[in-house]
Amino acid sequence: MTPPLPRLHGLPLDAQGRLLLGGQPLSHWAEVLGQTPFYLYDRACIAERVAALRAALPAGWQLHYAVKANPMPALVQCLAGLVDGLDVASAGELRTALDTGMAPGHVSFAGPGKREAELRQAAAAGIVVNVESERELHALAAAAQALGRRPPVALRINPDFEMKGAAARMGGGPRPFGVDAEQAPALLAAMRTLPLEFVGFHLYFGSQNLQAEGLAQSQRQALALAERLAPHAPGPVRLLNLGGGLGIPYFPGERPLDLAALSAAMHALAAPLAAAFPQAVPVLELGRYLVGEAGVYVCRVIDRKVSRGQVFLVTDGGLHHHLAASGNLGQVLRRNYPVVLAERAAPGPDEATEVASVVGPLCTGLDLLGDRLRLPPARLGDLVAVLASGAYGASASPNRFLGHPPPLEALV
Amino acid sequence: MTPPLPRLHGLPLDAQGRLLLGGQPLSHWAEVLGQTPFYLYDRACIAERVAALRAALPAGWQLHYAVKANPMPALVQCLAGLVDGLDVASAGELRTALDTGMAPGHVSFAGPGKREAELRQAAAAGIVVNVESERELHALAAAAQALGRRPPVALRINPDFEMKGAAARMGGGPRPFGVDAEQAPALLAAMRTLPLEFVGFHLYFGSQNLQAEGLAQSQRQALALAERLAPHAPGPVRLLNLGGGLGIPYFPGERPLDLAALSAAMHALAAPLAAAFPQAVPVLELGRYLVGEAGVYVCRVIDRKVSRGQVFLVTDGGLHHHLAASGNLGQVLRRNYPVVLAERAAPGPDEATEVASVVGPLCTGLDLLGDRLRLPPARLGDLVAVLASGAYGASASPNRFLGHPPPLEALV
Repeated sequence: MTPPLPRLHGLPLDAQGRLLLGGQPLSHWAEVLGQTPFYLYDRACIAERVAALRAALPAGWQLHYAVKANPMPALVQCLAGLVDGLDVASAGELRTALDTGMAPGHVSFAGPGKREAELRQAAAAGIVVNVESERELHALAAAAQALGRRPPVALRINPDFEMKGAAARMGGGPRPFGVDAEQAPALLAAMRTLPLEFVGFHLYFGSQNLQAEGLAQSQRQALALAERLAPHAPGPVRLLNLGGGLGIPYFPGERPLDLAALSAAMHALAAPLAAAFPQAVPVLELGRYLVGEAGVYVCRVIDRKVSRGQVFLVTDGGLHHHLAASGNLGQVLRRNYPVVLAERAAPGPDEATEVASVVGPLCTGLDLLGDRLRLPPARLGDLVAVLASGAYGASASPNRFLGHPPPLEALV
Repeated sequence: MTPPLPRLHGLPLDAQGRLLLGGQPLSHWAEVLGQTPFYLYDRACIAERVAALRAALPAGWQLHYAVKANPMPALVQCLAGLVDGLDVASAGELRTALDTGMAPGHVSFAGPGKREAELRQAAAAGIVVNVESERELHALAAAAQALGRRPPVALRINPDFEMKGAAARMGGGPRPFGVDAEQAPALLAAMRTLPLEFVGFHLYFGSQNLQAEGLAQSQRQALALAERLAPHAPGPVRLLNLGGGLGIPYFPGERPLDLAALSAAMHALAAPLAAAFPQAVPVLELGRYLVGEAGVYVCRVIDRKVSRGQVFLVTDGGLHHHLAASGNLGQVLRRNYPVVLAERAAPGPDEATEVASVVGPLCTGLDLLGDRLRLPPARLGDLVAVLASGAYGASASPNRFLGHPPPLEALV
């Protein structure tokens, strides 16, 4: 049996140290696409990640994909065939989700500021709305009334605890997300008289968490919170969205999440959960964890400058395509994303390297993809790959900035 | 004579404390545009700012607009009628600039990573290319040869000094921008044998500088540097682009640039400059300073939540339209942009206020337009205005993030 190929941030490398997506090096895909820069996503990696998650989940637990992580239509279509539901954050994402053919009852809509028109579209489509405020509850009810419908509704709760280990906390303390746990009973009571079908709770605490124990603890707390709130609910809990928050490693020193440990914790939770909520389907909602490592951003070295002893590899890609890699999407202290030469991604210990910064074409010092990286000496025309770029990449970047063309996106 | 209206970050307020653009409150423009969110830019403010600059410049000095600050076509057209030239940073911006009817000889192209196709377009159009590397010099010459043209060229210099007081330094030390001053003589020598028309130097040091003396000092240093390099040049200096870098106040405690002091310094520089370069036109290249205070970003309060004692005004706008206001475009420590209620922008000392955070509809804690601001109590439907948003706003933001519609832009 052939040993599995070595991997770099989830993607295989061939014997020459070339990154492979869809079984081919990126130089191949650059020819197929006819240009750089581009984002490339690998179906096999996505399917493999979903399969690993499925294997880790207790029986009967469902897996949803959070479209906001990567809304490329072909990729969402691919995911729609692999997961049990899609979560959207806007009417725009809703369109993408429904276009896949996913049943509306398996699509949910979360977000702290849903517009009236969006709530009406959701009610008309019959998707599950995660209601996040009193205003939303009544606006959705008014839309339901006008449409003569009774749309399914989950209540999104801002818990009274914080998640441990999350890079971005989105629950606990004062938050614009969801309804404070303390306010939930009043809203659940109000729901009884409205033309809305209560289906359950949405509990979300934070994202990009690499600690299995932090995730497991928040799931236990979520169950306890749901048990406290359930007596106030106008009907049985049939959906228990435990959020997601599973992280992927980006930076030196970060280790992949211990999925086996999280799986054990979820299995331990499964029996008490089923006992407390015999009619409920538990849902794990994941974005970044499913697609983040399945994607790369690829640009080409178009100039090589040495300025006062420092090497700059100037590429045709940059911040306008990949804001997060530039350090301008939530990072306080900038750290380098994993950036490699696509065809020499794993230089051996004896191979010559140099220290070089990778920059883009924008007239700003912010356009920095890699600050003083150790790389094999790069030549004009070499492809640079930013790894771990399948989530919050193309769609989360200021594509129009300075008037350069947007990146291509492809799924292979 | 009527006393002038009070101003807030450059924009007039009426007696009721309403912001006025084009002489009308923002509620009027929301009706005209038929939606929120939108960016609104005021022609009169732009014209006034240009006139103030003109009055401050020594005779014969020219004023250029850097399109990257705001590439909205109607606004660039407006500027084209007010300034002497346009500076672009990509082929996309070049198209916008030439569409205004500006003579190609008054358009220049800067940027650390110009693609070959862009250099060829520039050569074909006959605009001034600010060459920033040896590779660019030869690529432009090859394009010129192929086209049978002799395009005008300025050499962009990375100076051997840093600008004092600039929020973003773009010169001095190792940089991807321009050619190190030490390397310039060799490139100037190489230019002699190439089909390129040397026209002068582009010297740019940094941006968003509020200190007149820092700006004046770098202009003096730029002149000295140009004098050192001129003997190596293949022809007379006819264009001396002294950069820009004039800042506008954004944050509490920042004071407007003392334009009178800078004007005095520029007038003192004019005679030695004319003596050293009798054939040269000095150029000031400004983006943010011309348009930044002439624009606002306007969104509407669509929800009002109190979570654990903290008020959140949830709006239909956010980070996806105005990345800089969210603190994710180069800021290390987030500070609040000037954010007000558009119709109650200047509450009197006796007026009731509350502490409220202004957030957007995105499912991320990053979507924060104003953190714990003191504002008059806001109601649903109120318009929120982010001031000082005429530059690096719409075009510098990740419009597609989470699938919401892009903002409208209008010039009134």
